[in-house]
Amino acid sequence: MDAAPARPFAGEALGRFVAESRPEEIGPALRHEAGRSLLNFVGCALGVARDPAVETAARVMSPFSGPERATVIGRPERLDAMGASFVNTVAGNLLDYDDTHLETVIHPTAAVASPLLALAEIRHLGGAAVLHAFVLGAEVECRIGAAVSPGHYDRGWHITSTTGVFGAAAGCARLLGLDGRRTWHALGIAASQSAGLVENLPSAAKNVGMGNAARNGLLAALMAQAGYEAAPAAIEGPLGWARAMGDRPDLARITEGLGEHWEFARNTYKPYPAGIVFHAVIDACLELRGRVPPGDVAEILVEGDQLLLDRGDRAVTGPRDLRVSIHHCAATALLRGSAGVADFAEEALRDPALAALRGKVRAGLDASLPRGAARVTLRDAAGRVSVALVAEARGSAGRPLTDGELDAKFQENAALGGMGREAGPLIRSIREMGDADDLAPLLRSLGGG
Amino acid sequence: MDAAPARPFAGEALGRFVAESRPEEIGPALRHEAGRSLLNFVGCALGVARDPAVETAARVMSPFSGPERATVIGRPERLDAMGASFVNTVAGNLLDYDDTHLETVIHPTAAVASPLLALAEIRHLGGAAVLHAFVLGAEVECRIGAAVSPGHYDRGWHITSTTGVFGAAAGCARLLGLDGRRTWHALGIAASQSAGLVENLPSAAKNVGMGNAARNGLLAALMAQAGYEAAPAAIEGPLGWARAMGDRPDLARITEGLGEHWEFARNTYKPYPAGIVFHAVIDACLELRGRVPPGDVAEILVEGDQLLLDRGDRAVTGPRDLRVSIHHCAATALLRGSAGVADFAEEALRDPALAALRGKVRAGLDASLPRGAARVTLRDAAGRVSVALVAEARGSAGRPLTDGELDAKFQENAALGGMGREAGPLIRSIREMGDADDLAPLLRSLGGG
Repeated sequence: MDAAPARPFAGEALGRFVAESRPEEIGPALRHEAGRSLLNFVGCALGVARDPAVETAARVMSPFSGPERATVIGRPERLDAMGASFVNTVAGNLLDYDDTHLETVIHPTAAVASPLLALAEIRHLGGAAVLHAFVLGAEVECRIGAAVSPGHYDRGWHITSTTGVFGAAAGCARLLGLDGRRTWHALGIAASQSAGLVENLPSAAKNVGMGNAARNGLLAALMAQAGYEAAPAAIEGPLGWARAMGDRPDLARITEGLGEHWEFARNTYKPYPAGIVFHAVIDACLELRGRVPPGDVAEILVEGDQLLLDRGDRAVTGPRDLRVSIHHCAATALLRGSAGVADFAEEALRDPALAALRGKVRAGLDASLPRGAARVTLRDAAGRVSVALVAEARGSAGRPLTDGELDAKFQENAALGGMGREAGPLIRSIREMGDADDLAPLLRSLGGG
Repeated sequence: MDAAPARPFAGEALGRFVAESRPEEIGPALRHEAGRSLLNFVGCALGVARDPAVETAARVMSPFSGPERATVIGRPERLDAMGASFVNTVAGNLLDYDDTHLETVIHPTAAVASPLLALAEIRHLGGAAVLHAFVLGAEVECRIGAAVSPGHYDRGWHITSTTGVFGAAAGCARLLGLDGRRTWHALGIAASQSAGLVENLPSAAKNVGMGNAARNGLLAALMAQAGYEAAPAAIEGPLGWARAMGDRPDLARITEGLGEHWEFARNTYKPYPAGIVFHAVIDACLELRGRVPPGDVAEILVEGDQLLLDRGDRAVTGPRDLRVSIHHCAATALLRGSAGVADFAEEALRDPALAALRGKVRAGLDASLPRGAARVTLRDAAGRVSVALVAEARGSAGRPLTDGELDAKFQENAALGGMGREAGPLIRSIREMGDADDLAPLLRSLGGG
């Protein structure tokens, strides 16, 4: 038989951390980052509120919704907290345009924020409590993810879904006021609901995994509140989560420096709705734009490390390919000078000028370039070359999006969702949500007409 | 990069099988077995309808229930199809008293039957369609489980939960009339919802994993019906379900002999609410009962293979231990001549006579005994010995419970759930459900007062 796990159990330590955290332990920088994460999340969800994937999720969930209802961001339906958590998480993460904890490649906010906002709206809770619960939930999510990275993702687990359920459970447990022991059980119950596959990422099944992370995390907290318990070592035990879902988990990552070192503080926000490794390609091409008229471009050589090539050296056959294509990212940045949601939509697939430019892109390996970097070399018909090297893409940890850039991203997303005129007041309300005694009015104002 | 998976994809073949199966392909023996499975499942759920774990699940789900409601077996609440699927699955499997596909150790019925019965009640569907969909769903569940056994369970996956979601998705897809392609997508969406850990089995978190298998399987079918798609190789792809959750899957098991060889036909039913490996211990002790008065017993030697010892040679500290204790199973059979639900409840933990007899049990290895067998040797104070050897326990594939025994089990469970007087008519209605044009009246009659 296996030796007894070391005390405290991982869930026990996390449960105590989440339940006992005091507001003053979350400094101004973390609070500010939480506000940025929520603004970015709400904007991403608004931007795709009319996408058929979001519409379908809302339509399927509607008949299964109880009477106490919360806002579906940018949409007219209202759903109970389970349904709203599901649909808002689907929307917030739909285009992978949200945010990134780079070490784990977790997009941390959507699954954690959605159930907290739904609970806050229904129960008329204040913004400070929600921000606090959000930081704690996202921290739990990133730490559990760090313990199983990178083997977990490599094995086929969509880490944003599989760890999102823990983050949602932790955040909801905090917002519901559960004590440390019940929060521990909530995390253990979340472990038995953790799911989501990389194989399904290019399909709508990914959305279901994401929506469930939020919906089931909320369920875990509610079940623990009602008295359901989990095994003490559900996370790290010999037949528990970390070993079933990871091959050599580094369990110390879950708890070391808890409350001192914050993984969530490393969250970053995407300026472009494309795979994170393509951001440097886009930046380099934006820099080169104008040096050679598109009609004169003879060849576009994009160089990067093996990961860039593995992920993005691909023919474009459908709209899902656009966001993970070196060729398309380079072409839209050079031709249009932009890489926004519209530049990765169906229309961009059919644009003949973009197709022509995609045909001139060639991808090459430069193993000396660091991960996330790209060099782009433009050659014109006369053989003249222009080169741009981007080591740190816009939006990365070294060049984080400014508050102004996040506001502009929100503005664009709000316009896509048909709420461009309300964007200014919404940005202000979200940035000031920590001062609101009752978040319900703000959240209701996010519903679409 | 990996080579393209062989066509047809596993989900594609299963989807076509489920969508295109004709009623006449399900022979009388399979139909009869399906009826036995459903009768046994309903009885198990009735027996624990007043258990706090079931009551809590119903209470938590209640506020999240839409207006179209279905029966919660043995209980007064009615819940929407998601909620009823969840709670009825929790109840049907609560005591692991339900059924067993021995090779995979899947308890096949609860997660598949619950959403089918809920849908049938709400939509007034007939019994023949439900039985057909149930057989197909259970078959998909057992085949997918066989492909990853035994490594999947050994790794920490609670296979009844992890494969139950596929069975529920397949059964619901059939009952909703989805075509082969949409059923394929439903199975792929189910893959991204598959969850549940062995570590959590001794806790209520296990119930959540079970309830979700049903609830999320239904969701998978509804999402596929609404147009959501999954990756073609969600089950067997390089980053798909079978490789993420199993180490050396035998993928051929999913599809070989589909429609000819039926895994579901190997379903068996438990006569005792104890771990399956303890059934031979109980049978042997029932056989020895009366040969030595309990007060004269000096020692009870129970011998079996390593699995029996690993699972059951344990001190009894709480009621959850009783059902997986060699000592307790032997004691109750010898002292009380019974091993029913009451004999594994809190009261049995405190019964001093049982405790005294448990103290006389000693477990020993006999590696020559086949799995599932047990030899019990009673020694009295004078040194006289009585021996009983049971190679095939009652309820196993070699000694299946008769229809009469299943009726008696249902009767006992109904009495525990406060519906003993209705048991006779209920048994008749369930056995004849294949002839019912509308299952709603039967299902409504299963609700408790």
